[in-house]
Amino acid sequence: MPKLWNETIEAHRREVRDAILDSTAALAAENGPLSVTMSQIAEQAGIGRATLYKYFPDVEAILNAWHAREIAGHLARLAEVRDRTEGASARLEAVLETYALITHESHGHHDTDLGAFLHRDSGNHLAHAHQHLHHMVQELLTDAAQAGDVRDDMPPAELTHYCLNALMAARTLPSKAAVRRLVTLTLTGVRPPRH
Amino acid sequence: MPKLWNETIEAHRREVRDAILDSTAALAAENGPLSVTMSQIAEQAGIGRATLYKYFPDVEAILNAWHAREIAGHLARLAEVRDRTEGASARLEAVLETYALITHESHGHHDTDLGAFLHRDSGNHLAHAHQHLHHMVQELLTDAAQAGDVRDDMPPAELTHYCLNALMAARTLPSKAAVRRLVTLTLTGVRPPRH
Repeated sequence: MPKLWNETIEAHRREVRDAILDSTAALAAENGPLSVTMSQIAEQAGIGRATLYKYFPDVEAILNAWHAREIAGHLARLAEVRDRTEGASARLEAVLETYALITHESHGHHDTDLGAFLHRDSGNHLAHAHQHLHHMVQELLTDAAQAGDVRDDMPPAELTHYCLNALMAARTLPSKAAVRRLVTLTLTGVRPPRH
Repeated sequence: MPKLWNETIEAHRREVRDAILDSTAALAAENGPLSVTMSQIAEQAGIGRATLYKYFPDVEAILNAWHAREIAGHLARLAEVRDRTEGASARLEAVLETYALITHESHGHHDTDLGAFLHRDSGNHLAHAHQHLHHMVQELLTDAAQAGDVRDDMPPAELTHYCLNALMAARTLPSKAAVRRLVTLTLTGVRPPRH
């Protein structure tokens, strides 16, 4: 009984927290992050101001929490794609394509005030997420090299840097078809050289 | 006679201007851009404060002029490499390698206060230079595609985006040898596909 009660409270807290993050992101996207107030957020989330302050001290903290949740969601999506794909080469391809599509989709808010705001303050968890991503891709490249589908004449860390930088071009590409062509180009670079 | 006189004045002005830019860049790199004063710059450049103010209104204007001169120098170096190299494929390779090495070399000041300062204020001439670079590389890729050394199954603009993004990895690579391997990877991506 106490456990169930705790779980219910936990689930409720998580729901309220998610509602706060969603409301704030929507308001920030609409009017710019600097114009959002705690009162607007409480109203949009359907909670009282006093309750809101029990969760977060200010708008900046909410935006950073929202961004951290976005990034964690992207990493989870990549891990899920990796885990459900069979074969080292197919796995590498699926993860790189998903990463390129995420980069393409989130391009929108990189060019806005919201993007600038987030990147100013969330350098730390971004760096951590990037490290995580780098590690994941390097492991996939190493596996694919062992399977003979990726060149083994260059350090895997360099191949990883190359892939992740090349795929950043997805930010400015006009379509998903162009993003897929970019993934093809990038993968061609890491294939074993012709003899 | 008047023409010679004007040329002498022009050459003198350019020398003073260059001395101001060099002195300011050195001071900014040493102590951070925000701590540099007009008096220090005048002293380091060996001119009077009054003279300095005839050239530039403030430190920010000098740093921006210095950065513009750097960027123009990089573009000139790339054009020079392009013009002295024979053959479409070799030309593409030489220009991309030079670009990657420039990116690698200027990595130093991207991570400093000076880098942050410059990138905050000089968005406009950076964007213009990037457009110029994009145009140059796209032309080289188109020529190499016509020569059969680059794939012609993808839009040249997309190949250009891919190359310039991939080569940004040179910023974090540890050595020139690693930069050259990066250029190899990048070029492999744009080669005609195997059948």
